[in-house]
Amino acid sequence: MTLLMKLSRRDDVGLQHQVFEQIRSMILDGTVKCGAKLPATRLLSETLGVSRNTISLAYARLADEGYIEMRESVGTFVSSQIPDLALLPANASDVSSHSLDGHFTILGGASIAAEVRSQTLINPHRRPLCADFWVGRPAAKSFPLKTWSKLIHRRLLSAGGALTEYKDPAGLLDLRKAIIEHLRAWRGITAHEDQIIIVGGCQDGLNLVCRMMMVRDGSAIVETPCYQGAAYLFESFGARLHPIPVDAKGLVTSMLPDVANSIAYVTPSHQYPLGVTLALDRRIELLAWAARTHSYILEDDYDSDFRFSGPPITALKGLDRAGRVIYLGTFSKCIGAGIRVGYVVIPRGLEDSARHFKTLMNNGQPWLEQAALADFMKDGFYESHLRRIRRLYLNRRNALLDSLKRHFGSNEVLGAEAGMHLVWRIPKHLPSAHEIETIALSVGVGVYTVSSGGAADLCPAAENDRLLVLGFSSLSEQEIELGISRLAQALAKINPLAITRSSAHLPKGEIRPRSKGEASQKQKRALDRRMLA
Amino acid sequence: MTLLMKLSRRDDVGLQHQVFEQIRSMILDGTVKCGAKLPATRLLSETLGVSRNTISLAYARLADEGYIEMRESVGTFVSSQIPDLALLPANASDVSSHSLDGHFTILGGASIAAEVRSQTLINPHRRPLCADFWVGRPAAKSFPLKTWSKLIHRRLLSAGGALTEYKDPAGLLDLRKAIIEHLRAWRGITAHEDQIIIVGGCQDGLNLVCRMMMVRDGSAIVETPCYQGAAYLFESFGARLHPIPVDAKGLVTSMLPDVANSIAYVTPSHQYPLGVTLALDRRIELLAWAARTHSYILEDDYDSDFRFSGPPITALKGLDRAGRVIYLGTFSKCIGAGIRVGYVVIPRGLEDSARHFKTLMNNGQPWLEQAALADFMKDGFYESHLRRIRRLYLNRRNALLDSLKRHFGSNEVLGAEAGMHLVWRIPKHLPSAHEIETIALSVGVGVYTVSSGGAADLCPAAENDRLLVLGFSSLSEQEIELGISRLAQALAKINPLAITRSSAHLPKGEIRPRSKGEASQKQKRALDRRMLA
Repeated sequence: MTLLMKLSRRDDVGLQHQVFEQIRSMILDGTVKCGAKLPATRLLSETLGVSRNTISLAYARLADEGYIEMRESVGTFVSSQIPDLALLPANASDVSSHSLDGHFTILGGASIAAEVRSQTLINPHRRPLCADFWVGRPAAKSFPLKTWSKLIHRRLLSAGGALTEYKDPAGLLDLRKAIIEHLRAWRGITAHEDQIIIVGGCQDGLNLVCRMMMVRDGSAIVETPCYQGAAYLFESFGARLHPIPVDAKGLVTSMLPDVANSIAYVTPSHQYPLGVTLALDRRIELLAWAARTHSYILEDDYDSDFRFSGPPITALKGLDRAGRVIYLGTFSKCIGAGIRVGYVVIPRGLEDSARHFKTLMNNGQPWLEQAALADFMKDGFYESHLRRIRRLYLNRRNALLDSLKRHFGSNEVLGAEAGMHLVWRIPKHLPSAHEIETIALSVGVGVYTVSSGGAADLCPAAENDRLLVLGFSSLSEQEIELGISRLAQALAKINPLAITRSSAHLPKGEIRPRSKGEASQKQKRALDRRMLA
Repeated sequence: MTLLMKLSRRDDVGLQHQVFEQIRSMILDGTVKCGAKLPATRLLSETLGVSRNTISLAYARLADEGYIEMRESVGTFVSSQIPDLALLPANASDVSSHSLDGHFTILGGASIAAEVRSQTLINPHRRPLCADFWVGRPAAKSFPLKTWSKLIHRRLLSAGGALTEYKDPAGLLDLRKAIIEHLRAWRGITAHEDQIIIVGGCQDGLNLVCRMMMVRDGSAIVETPCYQGAAYLFESFGARLHPIPVDAKGLVTSMLPDVANSIAYVTPSHQYPLGVTLALDRRIELLAWAARTHSYILEDDYDSDFRFSGPPITALKGLDRAGRVIYLGTFSKCIGAGIRVGYVVIPRGLEDSARHFKTLMNNGQPWLEQAALADFMKDGFYESHLRRIRRLYLNRRNALLDSLKRHFGSNEVLGAEAGMHLVWRIPKHLPSAHEIETIALSVGVGVYTVSSGGAADLCPAAENDRLLVLGFSSLSEQEIELGISRLAQALAKINPLAITRSSAHLPKGEIRPRSKGEASQKQKRALDRRMLA
């Protein structure tokens, strides 16, 4: 018999590999039958015009994998061991559908893809925007690259086995200690290093808690609106969601259901996305509710490092005397999402369980980021970094308040005293939030409704459509002014009353540094004083 | 009223913070009642002997958080808003037990910690061993530190927003492309970049699949013995485990249960821990079973990069035409566990679902390791690195075979043609595996039984106690010889017939480079020839 093969010398796949692959598939699809004798290496090498050695090596590999048998001085045969090849499922194209069927059955008739949603992390708008007020993005330039590189380099020099060995799945001890220091000084939390689990950002921490608490098929209480990543994750575990509204004092604790053994996911420092701070009496009621119902509180403190007025407020965990609060911290906002580091503070008595689950989930985080971050915190770089970007974001927030005021005559906002975004209450004479979002997009400006900005608005209140979520942390003061003025002009086209005279006459996209300068300078000075207090 | 406080100037906590904390807790534990008037700042500053400004700032923060109210020209009062403090759960000490109760209830009467087990990653033996044959540890010195540091440094220079932004949760495109190249050339797998999900090592990949496939309460088929991390993870999801024995041809496919929509976790290239390779006919039967029962096969290809004889054999995934095989790869063995990078090859049609779950789980992996690894692979460093350590491990394996032969007269082993460990069949005249493990430990040598070396022996076969699992990758040839000779001497004390005369006369711990040299040199040359073929 002869074997028909197409060998390409251009192909970056070696000839030997090509010969092997082609004979293998001829055997598998039955072109060459079991027991059939293969041409001698010399013969085949001549037919194909490749070196005999190439053929021998290809044969050797085929034999090695059991496709062919070389019988001493008799010849080379297709293995008789290969069972009826009809057994081998047909090729992907016509089975992919089955595979999907099978897959659906696994899920009791429903498609996974349909069943789970995941949070939106990256602005879905394809085309570039001249000003994008997308939420929760640190300023790229703010990353302490020089220091970070130095620390990374230093750690690599003395890495030793650190890069090859498995480490404590709970995380690097140095880092856990540094975090404890930070929590004590800045968040009023006292914890022991065994209570800290280093995770791959907030989402990994949420998962850890879901696995530990067996949220699956249980009850999860969430603020509405709230962070998508949490709501969708609870959903994916089949948990029953209880959305609780948020007012000016934060979560309306009087509406907490009397469900035992549930978990309440909250953002007390700076409600996501509305920005309100949970009032003290509500905090105490929430803690009392947890103790009464044997439930746990999951405190997500995603951006409280940026508090623009006065010192950071104590975390809910700082009030927790019953070991009912699980605290989630992340470095994604204050350093960068690209390093994927966060942490969970586990209540006493649950440390082992948490460590077990973290091990089962992913054996812990990469060593290098943990090591660099530990040094970054220990050596005081973190504190100065926070001071620097806090001031940077303060200026950007001021620029935003300023532009809103000047172009729309109203800058009534929520949650402006902390964080990386604020919520603007749209003046009555302007269209609804989702209408403005579309109009803005048409002039290359990204502004977001409560539900399009990465939040899950589980029971949308009518007034939410009068709110726009505006992230300011990643935009320069110029970009902010440009974006808001463009938006103002676009809206003016629809309704000239929409905006203040000043910017109606403003040529497209032009920036008015003078007046802006004045205003924000004054505001800045005032707020800086408070900050420094 | 006066407030009794202890302020320490030595304490690294600022005075202002101390004042704040102490008044706060006096309010919370009721020492100071709601509505009570606080001393004027001047007065308190004098009593405490601290600057008045310190007191004012502490008061400002207390007011900020709602503990106290400052009434213009009247004074400062403990907030009346704070609800009955009896509501506030008692302090941790006496509630920790409740908190645990509550916790138990969540889990329907069982403790989590008791319910889940997690895999053993680090040798549990506290005291240092002179030779530790613990499994699956790369040689620390083998890490390509110089190249790695260079690549890391280069990437950091041009990082831009990469460290601050959220990225595609499926992983860095560069890296996914590089992996596809590697899979095509080395494992006979063809995949599209959408089918690759970068994960935090094998365990993160296992989790992804468990979440996707809803393994929970379903059926999971595992080899016995098998990798603990997989068995315990399935357990933690409440899956029903079906252990299937392994013989010389690998998983005994004839014993696969006819359970529909299940998942089979297998290690076809190098069964963990027994080391056998799944025969071709078994592979085809396994694939046929999956198609027939609408099940999925989870192929864990943890260490197949180290094949000492001939080219690497095609992965099971390379035979998969029905889209039934999910392939798990890791860089923990061939580069280092400290970088926490692995990948999953997802069958067509499930890519979106996989991406959704990866996002819900942890938003993807850190950027830096992915970027450095992508360059490491693209620039050809990976291939040469593999060649280098493959040779290194080959020599170590030879040294081990050699020492076993010389000291025990028998080196009948399983799974020596690939990987980082082998399984030694204990000669009849020697004690059982677990007895030898204890004896070895007493002389500072770590050898492991099938179940103590990180494997789960779900239905222990009697003959398994005649097997010892010996990892050789992290030990030098000298350490290997030292460890085996020590073991031989220790066993000789119990039964002089246990070992060959040669090493009975061997002074404790001495190494016999000459004879060892000879033997292993010869063996090395022979095997190198095969390797280079």
